[in-house]
Amino acid sequence: MLNKGQSEEELFAFLAQKRQEDLDHDFILSSMCTIPHSVAVRAHCLFMETNLGDPGLFPGSFSLEKLLVQRFGTLFHCKNAGGYATSGGTESNIQALRLAKAQCSGIVAPNVVVPESAHFSFKKACDMLGLEARPVPLGSDFRMDADAAAGLIDKNTICLVGIAGTTEYGMVDPIPALGKIAVQHDLFFHVDAAFGGMVIPFLDRPSPFDFAVGGVTTIAVDPHKMGMSTIPCGCILTRDPDLLNSLNIDTPYLTVKQEYTLAGTRPGAPVAGALAVLDYLGMEGMRAVVAGCMKNTERLIAGMETLGYQRAATPDLNVATFTCAKEAIPAPWRVSWTRKNHLRIVCMPHVHAGRVEAFLRAMQEQKKR
Amino acid sequence: MLNKGQSEEELFAFLAQKRQEDLDHDFILSSMCTIPHSVAVRAHCLFMETNLGDPGLFPGSFSLEKLLVQRFGTLFHCKNAGGYATSGGTESNIQALRLAKAQCSGIVAPNVVVPESAHFSFKKACDMLGLEARPVPLGSDFRMDADAAAGLIDKNTICLVGIAGTTEYGMVDPIPALGKIAVQHDLFFHVDAAFGGMVIPFLDRPSPFDFAVGGVTTIAVDPHKMGMSTIPCGCILTRDPDLLNSLNIDTPYLTVKQEYTLAGTRPGAPVAGALAVLDYLGMEGMRAVVAGCMKNTERLIAGMETLGYQRAATPDLNVATFTCAKEAIPAPWRVSWTRKNHLRIVCMPHVHAGRVEAFLRAMQEQKKR
Repeated sequence: MLNKGQSEEELFAFLAQKRQEDLDHDFILSSMCTIPHSVAVRAHCLFMETNLGDPGLFPGSFSLEKLLVQRFGTLFHCKNAGGYATSGGTESNIQALRLAKAQCSGIVAPNVVVPESAHFSFKKACDMLGLEARPVPLGSDFRMDADAAAGLIDKNTICLVGIAGTTEYGMVDPIPALGKIAVQHDLFFHVDAAFGGMVIPFLDRPSPFDFAVGGVTTIAVDPHKMGMSTIPCGCILTRDPDLLNSLNIDTPYLTVKQEYTLAGTRPGAPVAGALAVLDYLGMEGMRAVVAGCMKNTERLIAGMETLGYQRAATPDLNVATFTCAKEAIPAPWRVSWTRKNHLRIVCMPHVHAGRVEAFLRAMQEQKKR
Repeated sequence: MLNKGQSEEELFAFLAQKRQEDLDHDFILSSMCTIPHSVAVRAHCLFMETNLGDPGLFPGSFSLEKLLVQRFGTLFHCKNAGGYATSGGTESNIQALRLAKAQCSGIVAPNVVVPESAHFSFKKACDMLGLEARPVPLGSDFRMDADAAAGLIDKNTICLVGIAGTTEYGMVDPIPALGKIAVQHDLFFHVDAAFGGMVIPFLDRPSPFDFAVGGVTTIAVDPHKMGMSTIPCGCILTRDPDLLNSLNIDTPYLTVKQEYTLAGTRPGAPVAGALAVLDYLGMEGMRAVVAGCMKNTERLIAGMETLGYQRAATPDLNVATFTCAKEAIPAPWRVSWTRKNHLRIVCMPHVHAGRVEAFLRAMQEQKKR
């Protein structure tokens, strides 16, 4: 049994109070999500009712998803890339491994060669799909060791994974070297650029990580991270525009006859939001956002080192890590810790210059105590 | 490369035009989604920035998810049920089969006994998880044949699935009989109530389908269907409050140490929306919504039969099916067709009495042509 209904006033007083219990983004330094851009929110609200799981009912929304895939294809140097909007990096990574597995149906004990730095979603994916994950050690620079990766590949390997923007240290794996290895072994090569895919293309000196690199088969990118879209919005891109069809299953009673997505019902709203941000900011706007995040990351590293907290890595992207004791962090700031117990801060767009300075001041105050 | 940025005016003129290309819900008779309730949209907007994938940052939002699980637990006769908010029925069904598989790790060639009427998400789940799906034929009433199900169970069966509200014919499988079989064979028994879970409890004479039935292990229910919440919002419920922990994986660098969800980043917004609808309408409000949908379904069936289109089934829920030629449907109405080529109409809340009458008039006009 449910309760009796509540008045709207009573209900929203309660919900507003609950929302107050959530942390203020001003103090969130640990997240790869951020406050969505105002155009993302406005677009999201315009498409609130739409369901991409039944695209024949929502052809307008569906055309926005196609445009989003086109934008990423162009940005990632493969205009005709295939793809679709997922619920985020986890779904994109699962789907990449499903695709890899679908190409190698004869292999009895398939394995996947993934860097130790891989996001935990690869564990979920391997667990679900019955794949052995073979972890590749990192070099001293926290990047995957390509030679070590090559050494782990055998005839049962169905996929090689590289990370463009690791969750913990913000590093970009040596994608061109890995691409060569993938080509040599005729391997499916998935690049997890959930974080980096919306950072690297906008850097002054972008590391090669996308379809411009020979051998890259699929790329995951998350508009709901550095793309400043609303949650949930990820995207999987495939070099072969028809690759996803290998996951097709029949879908009676829909306006389409087959689908290859993981989810059935899928929101159009965050997809409209993601496209809105890309089209509103454009290349120059995204460059300015990313330049700001990188500048703040450098300032944070310099400031922390001045306070005596040495960097753990010199990151490729806007993730800063330090040798620092947990007690050194004053409330109410929320940071996170890597598996090697390094302090980790992600300089997302909401962590603007003023917040970096405020955090550094708070760290200095805390030191005096 | 992205384009140059666009003005917000230009961008939203484009987006509004695309939104216009989507079908008007007035003519959508084929969907199990509906126009979200106004309180769901308002709550969604209030929680737009929240991420349940990192609950320590959003304790207020997280408490709403716990409340949503509690509401469903109470409604489904198991106050202490475990669960979480998924992206929808597909994720809930995948997770149920993952849970079933996790309990039976020794079985080499596991199979799942599912009715022929099961949603196609079970195909995805079985494909991903390496499970054999054993289809159970339906009786002449379009309900799963419990005896046939029992006959398909063997020592490699890890899960029995029943449907409370089939997608095609709106039927409720004989859950009590299936529950007995599950108990006899000590089997994991999952009830897919993605559609029916928000209908059956509000009927005058509800069929038993939930934890009140002995043997039911897990239930899937979708607030973004008859719960009138925003997309994406599903929910998986477990009788054992700790069952989901068997899917836990380590999650370094988050505010929680482990997670059992399929997705990583998860929106809090639709969860707030789902809870808002339940708490605003309450038991009486939901009963009124469901009574309206059932009345419209009956009126539609009576009206169609008067026009000479016989019902294919007498549904348990608000799904009406007919023997009818495809040419009989006038534009711009959007209906769907079952695998047996029956016309299928879902009387969702947006298909109110006025729309049913308008459709019947249009069908009559079409007949005269």
